[in-house]
Amino acid sequence: MKAAFPGSFDPPTLGHVNIIRRAASIFEEITVVVAENRHKKHLFSPEERLELVSALVKPWKNVSVVLCGGLIVDFLRGRGVSLLIRGVRGAGDFSYEFELSMMNRTLNPEIETIFLTTDPEYGVVRSSAIKELASFGADISSMVPPPVVRALAAKFCRVRD
Amino acid sequence: MKAAFPGSFDPPTLGHVNIIRRAASIFEEITVVVAENRHKKHLFSPEERLELVSALVKPWKNVSVVLCGGLIVDFLRGRGVSLLIRGVRGAGDFSYEFELSMMNRTLNPEIETIFLTTDPEYGVVRSSAIKELASFGADISSMVPPPVVRALAAKFCRVRD
Amino acid sequence: MKAAFPGSFDPPTLGHVNIIRRAASIFEEITVVVAENRHKKHLFSPEERLELVSALVKPWKNVSVVLCGGLIVDFLRGRGVSLLIRGVRGAGDFSYEFELSMMNRTLNPEIETIFLTTDPEYGVVRSSAIKELASFGADISSMVPPPVVRALAAKFCRVRD
Amino acid sequence: MKAAFPGSFDPPTLGHVNIIRRAASIFEEITVVVAENRHKKHLFSPEERLELVSALVKPWKNVSVVLCGGLIVDFLRGRGVSLLIRGVRGAGDFSYEFELSMMNRTLNPEIETIFLTTDPEYGVVRSSAIKELASFGADISSMVPPPVVRALAAKFCRVRD
Amino acid sequence: MKAAFPGSFDPPTLGHVNIIRRAASIFEEITVVVAENRHKKHLFSPEERLELVSALVKPWKNVSVVLCGGLIVDFLRGRGVSLLIRGVRGAGDFSYEFELSMMNRTLNPEIETIFLTTDPEYGVVRSSAIKELASFGADISSMVPPPVVRALAAKFCRVRD
Amino acid sequence: MKAAFPGSFDPPTLGHVNIIRRAASIFEEITVVVAENRHKKHLFSPEERLELVSALVKPWKNVSVVLCGGLIVDFLRGRGVSLLIRGVRGAGDFSYEFELSMMNRTLNPEIETIFLTTDPEYGVVRSSAIKELASFGADISSMVPPPVVRALAAKFCRVRD
Repeated sequence: MKAAFPGSFDPPTLGHVNIIRRAASIFEEITVVVAENRHKKHLFSPEERLELVSALVKPWKNVSVVLCGGLIVDFLRGRGVSLLIRGVRGAGDFSYEFELSMMNRTLNPEIETIFLTTDPEYGVVRSSAIKELASFGADISSMVPPPVVRALAAKFCRVRD
Repeated sequence: MKAAFPGSFDPPTLGHVNIIRRAASIFEEITVVVAENRHKKHLFSPEERLELVSALVKPWKNVSVVLCGGLIVDFLRGRGVSLLIRGVRGAGDFSYEFELSMMNRTLNPEIETIFLTTDPEYGVVRSSAIKELASFGADISSMVPPPVVRALAAKFCRVRD
Repeated sequence: MKAAFPGSFDPPTLGHVNIIRRAASIFEEITVVVAENRHKKHLFSPEERLELVSALVKPWKNVSVVLCGGLIVDFLRGRGVSLLIRGVRGAGDFSYEFELSMMNRTLNPEIETIFLTTDPEYGVVRSSAIKELASFGADISSMVPPPVVRALAAKFCRVRD
Repeated sequence: MKAAFPGSFDPPTLGHVNIIRRAASIFEEITVVVAENRHKKHLFSPEERLELVSALVKPWKNVSVVLCGGLIVDFLRGRGVSLLIRGVRGAGDFSYEFELSMMNRTLNPEIETIFLTTDPEYGVVRSSAIKELASFGADISSMVPPPVVRALAAKFCRVRD
Repeated sequence: MKAAFPGSFDPPTLGHVNIIRRAASIFEEITVVVAENRHKKHLFSPEERLELVSALVKPWKNVSVVLCGGLIVDFLRGRGVSLLIRGVRGAGDFSYEFELSMMNRTLNPEIETIFLTTDPEYGVVRSSAIKELASFGADISSMVPPPVVRALAAKFCRVRD
Repeated sequence: MKAAFPGSFDPPTLGHVNIIRRAASIFEEITVVVAENRHKKHLFSPEERLELVSALVKPWKNVSVVLCGGLIVDFLRGRGVSLLIRGVRGAGDFSYEFELSMMNRTLNPEIETIFLTTDPEYGVVRSSAIKELASFGADISSMVPPPVVRALAAKFCRVRD
């Protein structure tokens, strides 16, 4: 079975890597879908996010990464994928994810969403909080992989140059 | 008993219509209160929202629509209405609604809030998500009434012209 | 509009009285339905619960009390009542109540459930906790009306005689 | 990938069937594991539950049913299955399921749990509530499959004979 | 400041030890209060629970253990302690704990409850689940301290002798 | 034990005062830390927030107020404080607070967070809602102390001059 793992990945975290690693051992093929979502304000450009995620998934032969500028459900239909994977860090995340999965099913009844729970050691790793921490110069090396540590440092150090 | 059903209605959804239809059969008179809330950014102007809601409530003789530029509790006091109706789509909504009802009661102890739960088929219908979907050109006809489908299309197609 | 307020009332609390008082000013007629529920173990017999609730609702002319041995939805159908009132003490209660209301609607699509939130000063008043406290001889006079204080004392003092 | 769907199934519901049907189209093989759990009081015996579930899964060639008297994680280890499927009816269910999945992972780090959400039309279908409804003679044919309707009727009618 | 840490401790877990260790470094004196609660069915007798907890708290000079047969709030009043410590394993626990703290404050307005969150590695450790796991012979040595592993084994092995 | 109570205090509310008053009777010294957080948009400047909080804490000799421009955990390390106090208004707040406390512990494992629950009469008092109410001219004197009532009036009246 092929599955997709969609998200903003602004930036990708060790929590995302945790889900990808486990999903890659359950499903034959995983497509990580980087949602451009030009309506939202991101720290990293779509291309930067694609690049960061691509570097992280190299260890897994059955994982690929694509950029998606429109609706995920439309995008997947075109590629014959009907299974979405979502990571849930705890009960607080689930209400939103539950609603999102129902909405995707309303848009395309063939879409199935399955949920994996992030392993507890990555349960506090949320992209938005990481960006705020990085902006204060906090040590975030236990939350994001080394390339993302460097990418965040580069973003936030520019202002000091 | 007279009751009010306040909201932003940016835009009104089939979930709102579901609550209005059911409330109209429980209470003698329903006033749908379109909150201008000029502090928040809306897609539709207050006048557009008033017009969209007005079109939707025509089937019910005991439902009227008004625009409110200030505090709902002050507005209702002036009209002799002390009962607020709120629709709740699930447990995720309720925490916020509970707090809002307590705050309204602090502002005016005569205000009662009663909650109706949206029927499950409209449980995923949230105005903010609908706007995002419409901006991507998704088919939202199962979530909003036809006049709102057209109004959203008009908003988002302008950029293409 | 007629409405029903069903429950076990084992025993009735000041939280129940709070909901009844407010519902009685919103609806024309309130029927408090004491569910016998012989499958569950109660401290008070159905007749004792009926008597305790009856004493408490005397101040309101439009409130009556009945005992119900079967399904609430069947019982209400027979009496032409289709509106159920439920009190919710907070977000913790709501998940269960939401599910119950959906189940009642599945059993009889004409049944509407509306929710009132218990005023904060009665938010900690739960019948099961009150029974436990009373069994330890705690002062529960801020949680239940005087006749219930006496009834609980009578239940728990017997063993000392 | 092989997966297991464990539960008490006392009795199986249309919600269970909904999860099994969807899981059977995602995974190669599904083993439905009926947990005996002799510590808990069940309405149906382990053998009756096995039989009821077996009747329901006949339409799917890749679904089998087994009885398990011990720990699920030990049972699966012996069969080379490391993927558990759990159905979640809403945010209310998820806290418990999340904790259970973490506990299973503590007992055996190779165990993965994935969650599917029950389709909304079965969101109110909980085995414990169905038994209570059936005991009152309610029409539960929209909640459980016909063989379970009959099995419940047989259980609760005996007392009338 | 003196503080009390009340509970059933049936049996004590590594999660309890985690809270006690951290509380002992915040407060001058900690009294662990083993609630007898003879209304509830426990696996271990009050004396056994007292003994198990006493063995675990030996490393901390400022922690003592007592047995309490009545209401915690009354017990603490008699000893001049007005601060209760409660461990919370996650959002799922908190609703219940919040209500309990409010009820204690209603019984005695001088009682303060403060909450510590269990460290994530002990987040799945719940006494009731541990007893069930132990009854199946599961390896629970990562959830309870060695004396409790032995005590549980002794309880559940008796039947095999 | 010394403890810190961090927050934005934009503006401080009676809920904050409630937590400070109770924390001041539990701990030897309380440092209220006003987070500048220049990334977020505040109604009051850091200096105004510092001044408003300072006026409110005058009654307590063991409470001081400081401004913090960086990460709270770094700031506390420098001052030898490792205990954070957070007020929780209900279960809705707790998920976020739980995650925040875990993140702080990841950044500095010596940091302990303890939670106090806001007394119910201040449970609806949220700074963001108060600002919105004040912008409509609502009477917020039951939610914020008199100096904050005046400060809010000054902010929102300027536009009328």
